[in-house]
Amino acid sequence: MKIESVDFFYLSMPLITLDADGSQDALLVRVRGGQHEGWGECEAAPLVSIAAYYCPASHGACQPVSASVEGQRLDGPDDITRIAAEVRRNSMDLLQAAHTFSGIEIALWDLLGKSRDEPVWKMLGYSRTFPKRPYASLLLGDTPQDTLERCRSARGRGFSAVKVGWGRLGQAVETDADHFQAAREGIGPEGLVLIDAGQIWEEDVESAAARLPALEAVDATWLEEPFQAHALDAYRQLSARSGRVGIAGGEAAHNAHMAKHLIDFGNVSFIQIDCGRIGGIGPAKIVADYAAARGVKYVNHTFTSHLALSASLQPFGGLEEEQICEYPADPRSLALDLTANHILPDADGKIHLPEAPGLGITIDLAGAASYLVSVEIDVGGHRTYSTPSI
Amino acid sequence: MKIESVDFFYLSMPLITLDADGSQDALLVRVRGGQHEGWGECEAAPLVSIAAYYCPASHGACQPVSASVEGQRLDGPDDITRIAAEVRRNSMDLLQAAHTFSGIEIALWDLLGKSRDEPVWKMLGYSRTFPKRPYASLLLGDTPQDTLERCRSARGRGFSAVKVGWGRLGQAVETDADHFQAAREGIGPEGLVLIDAGQIWEEDVESAAARLPALEAVDATWLEEPFQAHALDAYRQLSARSGRVGIAGGEAAHNAHMAKHLIDFGNVSFIQIDCGRIGGIGPAKIVADYAAARGVKYVNHTFTSHLALSASLQPFGGLEEEQICEYPADPRSLALDLTANHILPDADGKIHLPEAPGLGITIDLAGAASYLVSVEIDVGGHRTYSTPSI
Repeated sequence: MKIESVDFFYLSMPLITLDADGSQDALLVRVRGGQHEGWGECEAAPLVSIAAYYCPASHGACQPVSASVEGQRLDGPDDITRIAAEVRRNSMDLLQAAHTFSGIEIALWDLLGKSRDEPVWKMLGYSRTFPKRPYASLLLGDTPQDTLERCRSARGRGFSAVKVGWGRLGQAVETDADHFQAAREGIGPEGLVLIDAGQIWEEDVESAAARLPALEAVDATWLEEPFQAHALDAYRQLSARSGRVGIAGGEAAHNAHMAKHLIDFGNVSFIQIDCGRIGGIGPAKIVADYAAARGVKYVNHTFTSHLALSASLQPFGGLEEEQICEYPADPRSLALDLTANHILPDADGKIHLPEAPGLGITIDLAGAASYLVSVEIDVGGHRTYSTPSI
Repeated sequence: MKIESVDFFYLSMPLITLDADGSQDALLVRVRGGQHEGWGECEAAPLVSIAAYYCPASHGACQPVSASVEGQRLDGPDDITRIAAEVRRNSMDLLQAAHTFSGIEIALWDLLGKSRDEPVWKMLGYSRTFPKRPYASLLLGDTPQDTLERCRSARGRGFSAVKVGWGRLGQAVETDADHFQAAREGIGPEGLVLIDAGQIWEEDVESAAARLPALEAVDATWLEEPFQAHALDAYRQLSARSGRVGIAGGEAAHNAHMAKHLIDFGNVSFIQIDCGRIGGIGPAKIVADYAAARGVKYVNHTFTSHLALSASLQPFGGLEEEQICEYPADPRSLALDLTANHILPDADGKIHLPEAPGLGITIDLAGAASYLVSVEIDVGGHRTYSTPSI
């Protein structure tokens, strides 16, 4: 089939807070071809990603993402790979292009799966999927008591693993230790405790290392993103000292190379990929295979909708040894309302990849429309973008 | 002083071609504070970089660049470092932020220099500067004869070094060899020949290596950007086989880490930094020092205006051993018309950093205004950006 249209929808909560809560807005992408439509989602900064699709060209190696997508053939996975390569080449000097294309690429897989009546994971080469143990991904509480209550609540909802982070983490070693203890107490002795530093130490290895004893004391599975995305030296140094506590990172990777470097040069134990940033499902699958071959655990990064959650599960859905996954446990209403179905834990607390064609997620058009933000962009007196009808 | 205003001006040639010619548009940044104004330039994709400054926040780690800049104190270089760190933190998930902030950062240095009556290179710690040997940066001709004539013309204008690339490079080993010979013949036996592959081989080491004999035959100084920006493995493998031909790269670095990795893990011999992408002059200076300490040659990447050229020369202006610099030898009229003064070769064909305060470049307001593109962006019914008067 031919790619007939690509449309972007900027959704937002009425009020955006400065919490590190990525579920407050969303950029939905709809791709139509043949008799079908596919949906994807770009991670964060909707206006900027829209601009990267519609902007005028600066020159041959800085073309808008649209130049490599519109009117293309889509008959199989190889076409998605080919289109991705064209984007890399034609939008080489357009930094935002990777984020914009991520949502499109996800939508292309969804569209292709629907046209073939196959789930995406099957098109990726998996013959079956394995249930995942979701960890409740939560923001740190303002106090250790808040953190305790959040984690206890997650346990009460059936989660056996919890991740807390951001917020006030990193202010004092002792307070951090109290939060770690609170997380352990909240999720219980058998649960998994994961801590997300949100890059707070930039590239300061000693500040991160100062938290290791407290992390070991609560048997934390990992310390996530202690440093900036490209601070490979700092990752490597901390990994050499972290003992039983794994070092995790990778969510900021905007291509597969970046993730491989965190594995090869940063020596992380867990590689976390956001399909809405890395260029979509294809490069994420490359990273999943690369990690598996090196004994590094692949984990999705997802803090938004169940459309993004399904996309993020596809690359490692068929890997039996990869057992945990991130699960947005407390999102804003937008992230839940934009899909008609959701990926919910079963009686054992495990989640399963959808079996339905494509990503197996149905958009709730009315739900999404209620969060729609109108955008108009004029360049040189010409209307370059105007929010389409959903 | 306080940063009182930040304004963006999208300039464009009336017609943009798909040549790899980065001088066809420009994003000028004007920062006002105290009684002064500073000017900077972001590299490529003006609309997207404007959007990254004015977009609504998605959450606390995905704020617009404006959130970290407006109203800040600017009393010395440390304030620029501090503001840059705030941008990294507050716009962590906004990929385009590094490109947007690059132009602002350059303007902050220009503003600070004017307020202190000092050139930027002096504020960077250099007590003097050393003349540079400019290489004429040109696109490959459509035929080897075209390439010969372009390089001969550059020689006739006083250049003793020439770089050609992009266009049809990479189509066939024999044709490439003919172009290399043409460049050598055009610039003469004493001149420097530099070849720019423009990432054409992605990460295919053998295709790049197949050009090495022809590069050695013309005594080429370097082969530039054979691979994608993050393909460190490919860079390292080719560097191990390239003999007398240096491998160059780095223009796509959007932070100092990326450039360091090309040095440490890619083993490049020349590191090329675009101040309009890496985050401005500050991170470029960090790379210049890092390279100098490791025997790697630092070279600017500049294909646009003389404002961008002055900015790009500052980080290595005081390094005597760094002798060559990129010089946009055949830009579109826009790139020349937007400044009232230019950095021109002396009788020996060398160029000198300006001695005047800041970047030492005066904007030609009428010249710039004649290329101004009007842009309006509305989000949720509110005017988010409208081209200001210049």
